[in-house]
Amino acid sequence: MKNVFGIHPTAIIGDQVTIGSNVTIGANTIVYDNVVLGDNTLVGAQCILGEPGAGIYSDASSYNNPPLVIGEGALIRSGTIIYAGSELGAKFECGHRVTIREKSRIGHHVRIGTLSDIQGHCEIGNYVRFHSNVHVGHQSIVRDYVWIFPYVVLTNDPHPPSETLRGVTVEEFAVIATMSVILPGVTVGRDSLVGASSMVRKDVEPETVVAGNPAKAVASIHDVKSKADGSKVYPWRETFDRGMPWQDIGYESWLAGQRA
Amino acid sequence: MKNVFGIHPTAIIGDQVTIGSNVTIGANTIVYDNVVLGDNTLVGAQCILGEPGAGIYSDASSYNNPPLVIGEGALIRSGTIIYAGSELGAKFECGHRVTIREKSRIGHHVRIGTLSDIQGHCEIGNYVRFHSNVHVGHQSIVRDYVWIFPYVVLTNDPHPPSETLRGVTVEEFAVIATMSVILPGVTVGRDSLVGASSMVRKDVEPETVVAGNPAKAVASIHDVKSKADGSKVYPWRETFDRGMPWQDIGYESWLAGQRA
Amino acid sequence: MKNVFGIHPTAIIGDQVTIGSNVTIGANTIVYDNVVLGDNTLVGAQCILGEPGAGIYSDASSYNNPPLVIGEGALIRSGTIIYAGSELGAKFECGHRVTIREKSRIGHHVRIGTLSDIQGHCEIGNYVRFHSNVHVGHQSIVRDYVWIFPYVVLTNDPHPPSETLRGVTVEEFAVIATMSVILPGVTVGRDSLVGASSMVRKDVEPETVVAGNPAKAVASIHDVKSKADGSKVYPWRETFDRGMPWQDIGYESWLAGQRA
Repeated sequence: MKNVFGIHPTAIIGDQVTIGSNVTIGANTIVYDNVVLGDNTLVGAQCILGEPGAGIYSDASSYNNPPLVIGEGALIRSGTIIYAGSELGAKFECGHRVTIREKSRIGHHVRIGTLSDIQGHCEIGNYVRFHSNVHVGHQSIVRDYVWIFPYVVLTNDPHPPSETLRGVTVEEFAVIATMSVILPGVTVGRDSLVGASSMVRKDVEPETVVAGNPAKAVASIHDVKSKADGSKVYPWRETFDRGMPWQDIGYESWLAGQRA
Repeated sequence: MKNVFGIHPTAIIGDQVTIGSNVTIGANTIVYDNVVLGDNTLVGAQCILGEPGAGIYSDASSYNNPPLVIGEGALIRSGTIIYAGSELGAKFECGHRVTIREKSRIGHHVRIGTLSDIQGHCEIGNYVRFHSNVHVGHQSIVRDYVWIFPYVVLTNDPHPPSETLRGVTVEEFAVIATMSVILPGVTVGRDSLVGASSMVRKDVEPETVVAGNPAKAVASIHDVKSKADGSKVYPWRETFDRGMPWQDIGYESWLAGQRA
Repeated sequence: MKNVFGIHPTAIIGDQVTIGSNVTIGANTIVYDNVVLGDNTLVGAQCILGEPGAGIYSDASSYNNPPLVIGEGALIRSGTIIYAGSELGAKFECGHRVTIREKSRIGHHVRIGTLSDIQGHCEIGNYVRFHSNVHVGHQSIVRDYVWIFPYVVLTNDPHPPSETLRGVTVEEFAVIATMSVILPGVTVGRDSLVGASSMVRKDVEPETVVAGNPAKAVASIHDVKSKADGSKVYPWRETFDRGMPWQDIGYESWLAGQRA
């Protein structure tokens, strides 16, 4: 099949770009200066990598595009825009028309869904999964193994508009379901589960299910049973492994190996 | 006016593409192999048709792009991405930057609004209307004459993340208003109305209005009166006909003709 | 840095386009006929300006693209689509992949965030701020100095689908927080604050905080205290000035100067 692999002749690539081996850059994609693409990276069509920050518009002569570093083996689907001045770990994968702005620090094996909008000035751990259309405000901290589902917003301004930013923190293994809003400064605890369409204004305790508008604690995660067979489903790391480092060996075995 | 009709010289078109008569393909649009475009189809600028599935990245040498078949008279607005391996009926129309992934079976006379995100592995009937930014998860079934308004999400995972997918079913003539979330496995009944910002976790009975978080039945659709003149407004097929097969003749007359 | 300023050679520009002095048009951007770009306007890559209205598809021979007029000093970020037949004031600024349809009248010093979807047939005042992914339905009226946060929808159809459109009105200095839905015909009063995830079905009184699903009045804005230091934070014009005409002099001083 033509037009899929390799550097497409219509791609527009700056002089100061570092391209690893076996890299694809799709048709009509633009790569600005100081982008570093790791080996085996696939960049789809109609993407923009290294989009300049706002400083270029206020003072172009002194502007220098900060590096955008993308680790090896990334798969960046068509229509995605990633700003200069961010860092994405190995095996990064994203859907279409994702936006990732400056000063985003993103770990390895992260997947971000179509239309998600990462506002920058944030930290995202390893093996994090965002489904479509997740919005991550400045100052957010998302730890390893977090799952966030479509149309969730992590906010940051406690009394908008103001200059007081307080980011959201989402702890390891937490899950936030569709259309939930997390208010500024809230911590979503380890292993917790935020139900769909929740409005979360207080910290979520670890291993707790919250739901509603405003969200309240409704159960321990240990009480949630599978609708398919009635078995225990949380913490999810004990029942789900696709794409996780414990795939095929189980979380406990993997953890034991890590500790050995 | 230039640059609107015909095959634009900047369009990138695969060798194995079947193009009907009187087809437009806009500037910078990419059409991959095995796309079939019906007569009188209009494809805007900066679209991607036949986007390859994930298989091409895991094993490019054995990958064969499955057909994307688009019926006659479609109008695909600029920025839209449609995957290989889907089928769209005649008179399909969509807004900008729509995403439609693989194994979507979409009927005729369907309209899908700007930024909607059809995840694939789903069935959508005839004369369905999605407004902007509707998200349709895998395994969803949307019957004929359904209307879904902005930022609605049809979910599918009852205890995320898991391997248990249970799609939503939306029956004929149902209406789902803005920002509602339908939980996995729910059936939204024929002629029902889901109010704005609802979180629907139980089946919605036919001809019933539900609203709230969580959604509860609040009325029969027959009790809803027009804010303009106090007249009865549901089922909507008796009061609205724009773009429907009963336009200008009325639903009952049209139905009688169908049955004759 | 190359490929950022000036008219990029890959830009596709109609014959009937009026371009002011010192204008940038980015790579792969399309500008259709009858677009007027003010001096010092920056248009990013992969944009479409003057997108033709639906009339071109029904009768191309008699179709004439209505003017799109963009005031001086605009900054239109990459991936944005703006239709023919709209008017945007000076110093307009927007994020990525914004959509602005026909018959939008937008004042000066307005900022619209990434992925926002302005459906057209609407009026937006001066110094308005929309964050990401704001959806503005037909017939909406948004007055000066309004702030709207991510995933807010201004609706317009009181009993969808119908032909009865009643737009939302948002009065001066009002603030609507993330993920709120404003139902058709509602007026959001001057200086009011709509909390996150609200579903607003009744008018919001001036200087009032509403929240919840359905939204209810919960406080006067004068009772809201800063989480940082306990000080009064609303009306926000007395505590916030970034980008506003009273920047560095304070609202009261500025207002006094205006009245002098």
